[in-house]
Amino acid sequence: MELTGLSFLGSRRGAANNTSFHGVNPQTGEALAPAYYSASLAEVDSAVELASEAFASFSQSSGKARAAFLRRAADGITTRQQELAGRAHLETALPMPRLLGEAGRTANQLRLFADLVEEGSWVQARIDPALPDRQPTPRPDIRSMLRPIGPVAVFGASNFPLAFSVAGGDTASALAAGCPVLVKAHPAHPGTSEIAADILTQAVAAEGLPPGVFTLLFDSGIEVGATLVRHPLVRAVTFTGSLRGGRALMDMAAARPDPIPCFTEMSSGNPVFILPSALRSDPAKLASALFGSFTLGAGQFCTKPGIVLVPGASGDQAFLDALRTLVQSAPPATLLTDGIANTYARATETRSREIPLAASSPLPETSSPCHAQTKIFTVCVEEFLSNPQLTQEIFGPNTLLVHCDQPSDILRAARSMEGHLTATIFGDDQDLANHRELIHLLEQKAGRIIFNAFPTGVEVTHAMVHGGPYPATSDPRFTSVGSMAIYRFARPVCFQGFPNELLPPELQNENPLRIARLLDGQPEKAAV
Amino acid sequence: MELTGLSFLGSRRGAANNTSFHGVNPQTGEALAPAYYSASLAEVDSAVELASEAFASFSQSSGKARAAFLRRAADGITTRQQELAGRAHLETALPMPRLLGEAGRTANQLRLFADLVEEGSWVQARIDPALPDRQPTPRPDIRSMLRPIGPVAVFGASNFPLAFSVAGGDTASALAAGCPVLVKAHPAHPGTSEIAADILTQAVAAEGLPPGVFTLLFDSGIEVGATLVRHPLVRAVTFTGSLRGGRALMDMAAARPDPIPCFTEMSSGNPVFILPSALRSDPAKLASALFGSFTLGAGQFCTKPGIVLVPGASGDQAFLDALRTLVQSAPPATLLTDGIANTYARATETRSREIPLAASSPLPETSSPCHAQTKIFTVCVEEFLSNPQLTQEIFGPNTLLVHCDQPSDILRAARSMEGHLTATIFGDDQDLANHRELIHLLEQKAGRIIFNAFPTGVEVTHAMVHGGPYPATSDPRFTSVGSMAIYRFARPVCFQGFPNELLPPELQNENPLRIARLLDGQPEKAAV
Repeated sequence: MELTGLSFLGSRRGAANNTSFHGVNPQTGEALAPAYYSASLAEVDSAVELASEAFASFSQSSGKARAAFLRRAADGITTRQQELAGRAHLETALPMPRLLGEAGRTANQLRLFADLVEEGSWVQARIDPALPDRQPTPRPDIRSMLRPIGPVAVFGASNFPLAFSVAGGDTASALAAGCPVLVKAHPAHPGTSEIAADILTQAVAAEGLPPGVFTLLFDSGIEVGATLVRHPLVRAVTFTGSLRGGRALMDMAAARPDPIPCFTEMSSGNPVFILPSALRSDPAKLASALFGSFTLGAGQFCTKPGIVLVPGASGDQAFLDALRTLVQSAPPATLLTDGIANTYARATETRSREIPLAASSPLPETSSPCHAQTKIFTVCVEEFLSNPQLTQEIFGPNTLLVHCDQPSDILRAARSMEGHLTATIFGDDQDLANHRELIHLLEQKAGRIIFNAFPTGVEVTHAMVHGGPYPATSDPRFTSVGSMAIYRFARPVCFQGFPNELLPPELQNENPLRIARLLDGQPEKAAV
Repeated sequence: MELTGLSFLGSRRGAANNTSFHGVNPQTGEALAPAYYSASLAEVDSAVELASEAFASFSQSSGKARAAFLRRAADGITTRQQELAGRAHLETALPMPRLLGEAGRTANQLRLFADLVEEGSWVQARIDPALPDRQPTPRPDIRSMLRPIGPVAVFGASNFPLAFSVAGGDTASALAAGCPVLVKAHPAHPGTSEIAADILTQAVAAEGLPPGVFTLLFDSGIEVGATLVRHPLVRAVTFTGSLRGGRALMDMAAARPDPIPCFTEMSSGNPVFILPSALRSDPAKLASALFGSFTLGAGQFCTKPGIVLVPGASGDQAFLDALRTLVQSAPPATLLTDGIANTYARATETRSREIPLAASSPLPETSSPCHAQTKIFTVCVEEFLSNPQLTQEIFGPNTLLVHCDQPSDILRAARSMEGHLTATIFGDDQDLANHRELIHLLEQKAGRIIFNAFPTGVEVTHAMVHGGPYPATSDPRFTSVGSMAIYRFARPVCFQGFPNELLPPELQNENPLRIARLLDGQPEKAAV
C-alpha cells in the first residue's frame, strides 16, 4: 500500500499538519518516507468518543462475531506478511526471518483469541440457582460472568513491531474481550504501524463493526499518549517499554479522578541460576546458548537474561572462556533507535567503570548511530548484593555474570531480588531437587520459572505467564502473553433474579453456547 | 474472655503504652472498658516481619491444611457467637438478632473458603504439554497455577463488626489463598475485634501454623494503617469504608516505590429504577420494602439504595404517600459512632437546603450523640443531572427520590452515573424487556444488577459480585464477597520444563488432588 502518514480515526483518516516525524533506518541513519503527522488533541478526543460509542454495540457482540473479525485480521496479516516484515526491517533493522516469524506469531495470537472467544467458556459463567425454600429467607437466583471493561489504550512497543504493537497481543486480547482499542503507534516504526492499522480497519469494515472499534494515533512525543491515559472514557491502558515510561503511565492512571487499570510491562533482569551440575557436562554448549539468548534481537527482548549467577572460583573457567570468545568475535549489533543506542552506550560505559568488563565485541567500523558493542560484565556476589544499580536492566546485547562462591550465595542473591518476568535454573534433576527453597523464593520473584532453557522463548499458549512482580510489570496478577491476557480487559457482572430470556446467552438456563460453567461452584456443561 | 486492650503480634501481645482509646456505647455515649492501646510502629514492623516469615511456609501449605485452619476458626466463631454479638451490640448498637446472624455469616464465609481450597480447583491449573516434534522448534512443557501474593493488610470495617472485620470475608479469603493477614482493627469495635482475634490466634496455634499467619493491631488514629500500606513486605491491602479514606489508601499504595494492589470498597448510591409497571399493583408494599432496605442497619449498608428513580407526575402518588408515612413514624436511628452521626446530620442538613426534604422522622428526644433522623429527599431529573453533589452517598438512614417524567429520563440518568456496587430495576418482565438498553448501560455502571429485589441482601455464593467501577471500588475486576474474593490475593506463576515431582501437586501429571484443570485449554480432570 502507499503509506500516507495519517492516523486512523474510525473510518476517517487524521489530518496532515505541521508536526511531523519520520521513521529512520537504523542501519544507515536515513529518514524514511513518508512524513508522519502527530494526531491533534481534538482528533484524540473524537477517536475516544467514537470508541466509546462503538463499545455500546461491540460489548454486546457475540464471541462468534468477534472471532470472525479477529480471523479476518489474522488473514490480513498473513496475506501481507512480506509487506509488513519488509517495512519493519527498514524501520527496525531486525532480520527478515525474525520479522516473518513475528508476523506469523501475530496472526496466530489473533487466531488464538478468536478460538477462545468463539468457544466462549473464558467468561467464567457462574450460576447459583434460587433456593426458594431456604430458611430463614429464600435465596434469589444469582448468576455472573465476565463483561468487557471499555475502550483500551494500547501503546505499541519498540522491540516487537508486529507482535507487541498495532495488531499485537494487547490489541488482540482487548478486542477479543469486546473492548474497542486505541493504539498509540510507536514512533520508531510508523510505516509498519500504518500497514497493520490498514489491515485492522479493513477487517472492521468487512465485518460490519462500528468504525470506533479500532483507532491508530501517531505522535512523535508524549502528548497523545498522556491524553489517552487521562481521558475519562478510556477504561484501561497497556504498555511495554522502559521502567521510566511505564511508571509515568502508572502514576498518571492512578492519579485520575477515577483511577483505571494500567498494565505496564517494564524492566526485568531475568536472572539465570547456573547450578554446579549444569557446568559438568558441556560448559561450552551452555555458554553458546546463553550468548544466543542475550544477543537475540540485539539483546532487545523483555526476557533477555541480564543477570547470570554462576558457581565461583574454579568451576566455571571453561564456561567463561567460551563465552568470552563468542563475545569477542560478535559482529556489531544494530539497535532499534539512536536513542536506545545512546542509552546503551552510556549505561555500559558507566557499568564498566564500576565493575570488570569481562569481554566486549570489537568497536564497530561503521558510523551508524545505532550500532552497539556486545558486552559481558562480571562481579562477585558481595558486590552484587551491595550495589542495587547492578540489578537494573541495560536494554541491549549485554549480560552480567555474578560469581557465587558459596552454595548459600545463590539464596542470598535470590532473596535480594525485585520482581522479574522470568527466573531460570540450570542443573540436573537432583540439583534442582536440592534447591526447593530456591524454587519457592523464585515463585515470589517471577511470573515464570524455567528449568534448563533460556527465557527468551515465550510461547503463546493457555498456561503462559508473561508477567511478574514490580518492576517487571505494574500488576503481577496478569499476563500480557497467552490466552489469559484477555482477563486484563474484563470484569465480573452479576445478574440477580433476571428472567431467563433477558440474561446474556452465557447465563441462560439452556446453556445455548454449550460453555463450561460453574453451577453452585461445580463445573457443569449441562442445562440448569 | 477478659479483654486486655492489647494487639496480637503472632504468639505475643502488644505492649500497654500511653496512647489509649476506648470503645463507646452509641446508645449512651459511655466509654466501655478496657482501654485499648495503639500499636507502636516498632510493633507494626515486627508484626509484618513475622508475617513475611510465616508466608514462606504458609504459602506452601496444602489446601487441606488451610481448610482445617479456617474450619477451626469458624467453629470458634460459632461457639463464641453470643460473646461476640454481645460485645458488638455494646460497641455498635446494632440489634442482637442482626449480630447473631452476622456471626453465622462470618462462620459460613470461613467454611465456604475452607471448602473452596480443600477442593482445590480454584487455582486454575493449566497444562500445555511439551510438543517435542513441533517445527521449526519443539514446544517446551508449560504449566501454570495461582499462587498466594504475600502478606495482606486488612482494615476492619465499622458497619459489619464481624463479617467485614477481623475474621470477616477479607481475612477469610486472604488466609484461604495462603496469605498471612495483618488486621488493623476498626477503633469503633475494639472489644469485638479482640475476641475475634483470640479465636483466630487460637486456631493458628492449634493447627501448628507459624504465629505470623495472623496479626491484630489496634490504633485510634491512622499511623498504624499507613505504616502497613507503605511497608515493603506488605503485598496487598483491603479496606471497606468512606471514599475519602479509601482513596487515601489507594493513593498511598500507588505511590509506593513498588505499587501494590489496594482493594477499597467505598461509596455507592445503589440506584433503583422503578419502572411504571412496578407501581401498578401494590405501591404501598413497594414503599414498605424500600423503607426497610434503606433503613436496614440504620442505613449503614454499603448496598443501601440511596438513589431511587421513580416515574414522575401522577404515577407515584400512592407510593410516595406510603413512604412518607413510614418515614414520619420511624423511631430514632442509632448510628455507629458520634463521628458518623455528626457527618450524617451535616450532610442531610446541607442537602435539605439544596432540594426538598419530602419527609423526616421526628427529632429524637434523647441526648445520645449517635441518634439520627430518617429522611427522604425528592428532586426532578433535571436538577439531579445538573448537581453532581446529589449522587454522593450519605451514609445513614436516608434516600433520594428522583422523578423521571419522560421514559428517556431514565436512560439519561443512568448514563450520567458513576460506578456503583449495585443497580436495581423494578417492573414486570415486559417492562424489563423494553429496557434492554438500560440493562446494557447498567452493566457498565455496577457490579450487580438486580431485578425486583432490593440490593441490601448480599448472598455469599460463588456467583456473587460485590464490586463495581470507581468510586464504588478501587478495582472493578474483583469482588469482596463470595468465593471469587480469593482471586484478589493470588497471581499466576508458570513452571516451564520442570521435572514432574518438583511441580506443585496441582500441576503434576497424575493430578493427585483430582482438581479441574485446563489441558491445552480444554477442561480435563484426568491425568496427563
